[in-house]
Amino acid sequence: MLLLEHESKALLEKYGIKTAKCIFCETEEQAVKAAKEIGFPVVMKVAGREIVHKSDVGGVILNVKSEDEVREVFQRLMSIPKAEGVNVQPQLEKGIEVIVGVAENEQFGSVAMFGLGGVFVEVLKDVSFRLLPLTRRDAEEMVREVKGYKLLEGYRGVRGDVGAVVDLLLKLNEVVERESIVEMDLNPVFVYERGAVVADARIVVGERKRFEMGVEDISFFFKAKSVAVIGASRNLLKPGGRVLSNLKHLGFRGKVYPVNPNAGEILGYKCYPSVRAIPDKVDLAVIAVPSKNAIEVVKECAEKGVKGIIVLSAGFAEGWEQGKELERQIVEIARKSGMRIVGPNTMGILDPESGLTSFFSVLRKIGQGNIGVLAQSGAVANFILLPLWHVGFSKIVAIGNKADVGEVEVLNFLLKDEKTRVVAAYLEGFTNGRKFYELMKASTKPIVVLKSGRTEAGKRSALSHTASISTSEEIFEAACKQAGVAKVYDFEELVDAAKALALQPLPRGTRVGVIQPSGAECVMSADAVVENGLELAKYSEKTLERLYELAPEWHSINNPLDLYPIAEKSGDEVFNEVLKVFNEDENIDAIVAGVFIPSIMKLGVDFSWTRKFSKPVLFTMKDDIEELRQARIEIERSGVPVYPTPERAVRALRHMVTVAKRKS
Amino acid sequence: MLLLEHESKALLEKYGIKTAKCIFCETEEQAVKAAKEIGFPVVMKVAGREIVHKSDVGGVILNVKSEDEVREVFQRLMSIPKAEGVNVQPQLEKGIEVIVGVAENEQFGSVAMFGLGGVFVEVLKDVSFRLLPLTRRDAEEMVREVKGYKLLEGYRGVRGDVGAVVDLLLKLNEVVERESIVEMDLNPVFVYERGAVVADARIVVGERKRFEMGVEDISFFFKAKSVAVIGASRNLLKPGGRVLSNLKHLGFRGKVYPVNPNAGEILGYKCYPSVRAIPDKVDLAVIAVPSKNAIEVVKECAEKGVKGIIVLSAGFAEGWEQGKELERQIVEIARKSGMRIVGPNTMGILDPESGLTSFFSVLRKIGQGNIGVLAQSGAVANFILLPLWHVGFSKIVAIGNKADVGEVEVLNFLLKDEKTRVVAAYLEGFTNGRKFYELMKASTKPIVVLKSGRTEAGKRSALSHTASISTSEEIFEAACKQAGVAKVYDFEELVDAAKALALQPLPRGTRVGVIQPSGAECVMSADAVVENGLELAKYSEKTLERLYELAPEWHSINNPLDLYPIAEKSGDEVFNEVLKVFNEDENIDAIVAGVFIPSIMKLGVDFSWTRKFSKPVLFTMKDDIEELRQARIEIERSGVPVYPTPERAVRALRHMVTVAKRKS
Repeated sequence: MLLLEHESKALLEKYGIKTAKCIFCETEEQAVKAAKEIGFPVVMKVAGREIVHKSDVGGVILNVKSEDEVREVFQRLMSIPKAEGVNVQPQLEKGIEVIVGVAENEQFGSVAMFGLGGVFVEVLKDVSFRLLPLTRRDAEEMVREVKGYKLLEGYRGVRGDVGAVVDLLLKLNEVVERESIVEMDLNPVFVYERGAVVADARIVVGERKRFEMGVEDISFFFKAKSVAVIGASRNLLKPGGRVLSNLKHLGFRGKVYPVNPNAGEILGYKCYPSVRAIPDKVDLAVIAVPSKNAIEVVKECAEKGVKGIIVLSAGFAEGWEQGKELERQIVEIARKSGMRIVGPNTMGILDPESGLTSFFSVLRKIGQGNIGVLAQSGAVANFILLPLWHVGFSKIVAIGNKADVGEVEVLNFLLKDEKTRVVAAYLEGFTNGRKFYELMKASTKPIVVLKSGRTEAGKRSALSHTASISTSEEIFEAACKQAGVAKVYDFEELVDAAKALALQPLPRGTRVGVIQPSGAECVMSADAVVENGLELAKYSEKTLERLYELAPEWHSINNPLDLYPIAEKSGDEVFNEVLKVFNEDENIDAIVAGVFIPSIMKLGVDFSWTRKFSKPVLFTMKDDIEELRQARIEIERSGVPVYPTPERAVRALRHMVTVAKRKS
Repeated sequence: MLLLEHESKALLEKYGIKTAKCIFCETEEQAVKAAKEIGFPVVMKVAGREIVHKSDVGGVILNVKSEDEVREVFQRLMSIPKAEGVNVQPQLEKGIEVIVGVAENEQFGSVAMFGLGGVFVEVLKDVSFRLLPLTRRDAEEMVREVKGYKLLEGYRGVRGDVGAVVDLLLKLNEVVERESIVEMDLNPVFVYERGAVVADARIVVGERKRFEMGVEDISFFFKAKSVAVIGASRNLLKPGGRVLSNLKHLGFRGKVYPVNPNAGEILGYKCYPSVRAIPDKVDLAVIAVPSKNAIEVVKECAEKGVKGIIVLSAGFAEGWEQGKELERQIVEIARKSGMRIVGPNTMGILDPESGLTSFFSVLRKIGQGNIGVLAQSGAVANFILLPLWHVGFSKIVAIGNKADVGEVEVLNFLLKDEKTRVVAAYLEGFTNGRKFYELMKASTKPIVVLKSGRTEAGKRSALSHTASISTSEEIFEAACKQAGVAKVYDFEELVDAAKALALQPLPRGTRVGVIQPSGAECVMSADAVVENGLELAKYSEKTLERLYELAPEWHSINNPLDLYPIAEKSGDEVFNEVLKVFNEDENIDAIVAGVFIPSIMKLGVDFSWTRKFSKPVLFTMKDDIEELRQARIEIERSGVPVYPTPERAVRALRHMVTVAKRKS
């Protein structure tokens, strides 16, 4: 229900939000009395529950100066269709106009909006968002984030009370919650040198969207001791064959039951004509039959008492109308019998430790490690194995159409999983964005998220891929900021950030010390540091002294440090020496270093000694030739992530800083 | 010399630029007369050659309504120190305020600036730049480029005459040139629904910076038949040894004379104790002795009649004060005797065809091709060989400190070089930016430029690297836009763009057809296309029909096209088929396709048949494993560039579009 302006303002005043006094008048006499009480000039505005935008219907009259004018304006305003009365309020001294809003997002619930009035919001769309409730830091950041912030800081001798704006934003938490507000538009709010006053307010109360959900434990998928592969194929190139060869390849020790009425044995696993015919209990069923046969198979699984099902096949909700119905039915069957479904249209799960998997791609070496992967797409779950196999994974879950198990339950599982230290997520949309946000925010583990379907074209494509509901990009961006999650924009960035977070400690600050083997890389590193919002550290006296000792007399010592001339004088091994010097320098929070190839040729590629360092170290090295690729892998195995350019290393470091700031 | 406002306006009027009439008055009576002539209200402004900012000294009075007021204001304005008179002008109807400026940039000469008044320029720094003279397209783009452009398009019922603004900008060409203007500030200019009027003008005339330079031909460096390597070393790990082994490795057929008083023969080349002692003429001398010994050696070269010198050694202007002097002296010696110098502090030249090189890095296979490289840094010249060796190079020049031969002469050389089709440049600063711009603009060959030293920190670092004068980043950015040059921001982007331009034809438009082997890559591709300012093509009827034939019934046909289900129905070879369908579709200007691995496993990696295509094709493929890296190299050798992600492919395509638009 839309509140009238005076009701809206009364409600705000209850919570200590200052508004422009506003007297609701239903008769001309009341209006005259109100105006005299307030003192001329006054502002008169039409009031009516069904009048959504007063200005658009000529319903706001400024600078009404006399009793006669009040009478004339009153009549005029009351003649606007649906007018229920007229509000009379003082003509406020003009301050800096800002706009504060609250709205409900389909996926993330109540969201606050802030922006400066006039061209800033209307022409430049210069607004910031945060999910409610806000912390003080959230509120401060959302005010500082808009480009128009400079106006509040002071422009042409006028400045605004930023503290008052932050306080106003913080009060939204309580107002919205207690009064059940679904929409609020404080526009304009006048911000003065001291204080801020809401000049106009539009509030809609109603039933707020709820996001409670039972987040069930899905760890039983990974605890399965017996796996049926339904639609098992003798052709190992087909999904139903690949799953079997992958289980073998990863050394899964549980029982494997291929289901295929026409085969006796595949890869040494005895085949069964149906799930029913398996003489043992079945914890997990992997389904690789065409979508139109899936219902029958799921029914059999229910009868058999299977706990978890992974449906690999495509041809469900992502493709056609009939597929939606098929998907609905298998979920219904599963729910009735207490089974959970991962998929359809996906790769399912992979655990490098136990060797349990439903992946049907060609798997290679996959190390055990601390990166947990949540991927909406099976392809992405598969891609990520290649560049990070040696860094290692804890658990991988690809959820595809997420007809049943969704991103929330998987994130919850990974955050609780002991082996997982970092979560790398690829998503195209949300089932319950608010709940996902709450988990992210509560997480003590670093999270990196690549969310595609950011553009309208991308969203359409996502819909036909995993039948995903994409969300407003800027809201999710705000959610990530609030939760201290590293939001990335492409796959390389996802891998780069995950690697850094998996291998290195978080930095305590933003001061970077850079070492590079060439001047050009020094210049490019300096640009990268600044363009990523970090800063180049100023060396301590001790560091400077040490570096001057190591360098030839003609070399100027800077940050970034050009190592080439130093190595010419002090030997190739000086690379390791300088790393240690940087580690001991308290003015340096993080180290970005271009691997000095002559040094690793002499001293080898084991940098595990840097694990004692109190700050993150990220290396850069071109690896276009095979020997250097091998060296890179070995260096990363010893614990230091390596990037092909300074830009990529510094970008990964920036994500570490994002995570560190929030988790501090 | 600063012109007074009425002089400035008179000057502008001469060129048909409309200004607010302005009468210069030296007495109170004159002012009264002028005000009456103009009609009240008027604006009165102090005038004085030494008064730079009138507003700041209270020198602009609006809304002067009567004769008495004129008298009072006149006295007040004349009391401002340095006042020479008072300008009286009509109070203009308020239009949309814009600002037009001209200034001289140290490196690029006369530059025009455009922005909207008020917060846009002052708070948001929302301005655009272009080098003078402007084309109509330049002027239109600079107006559209600012965020505030939307205001001119229409906001709150007011709109501005964009055509009048463009005309005004175009008139700057002639005014600035003919009147020798070094600074101009038209602020504000009022733009109305019809027309635009300069309300205030500040013009400074003077001697404009000149950028003429003799651009000499440096091709003789590459025509050298005899090369002396001074400071030749038996230790092949040292620069003086590596150069020799590289000449051997690349099969240089000219004569090679190592100069080393203590060696008899190195790698089969007979050594000489000095340049003087070489019994033959020497075309090119490569100098690898320490900087302090360079003067002596350069003198000897001069005596010997050497034409070109390449100084590899560091320790010159980039490092210390003494180095600057050394550098100045070798250049002086060279100039006197007609020699040219490349370097110091660099790698020099490399020609894969003749095998001539002064590079002292470890060289591997380097193919002949059409990419010409201009690199300020030897390291970058060296790096670029690795990812592009199989695409191939025409000539490579690394200029280091560019004490003598600079970026202008090298660009000129590469643009004239028959073997060069694409120029890839890495720069840290300019010797003559204006000349470089003119060459870029006149070029019919695609140019890609990576310019580092973009930030203050980067500039400082560049100074100590190649003693480079960095330029204002936004001016160079404008220069690239005007010249149709692809400006890139890191080394990977440089390689990515160069590869596309070297191998593929330019697109005729921005409509992209995308094929991907997974849904996730479809979604990410769609985001990339839109985020790079390109668009997803709408298939022709014929294409749609064909795709529906190839796809399973449940598959929805979109762009990006998810190939996986199509291949399931129509076979893995369908990848090639779909490429052909896309080539024939006139709604598609460029193709981005994820390599379908099962297809290349069956049909091989030779895509030379796509050379007949009328539009560019860019592939994407992850190459984290050795087999795929080999496949990628082979595909690229057959003519199609391959990128690890859709984002990188689409970004490279965007650069092709930039080049295509300008060269059209």
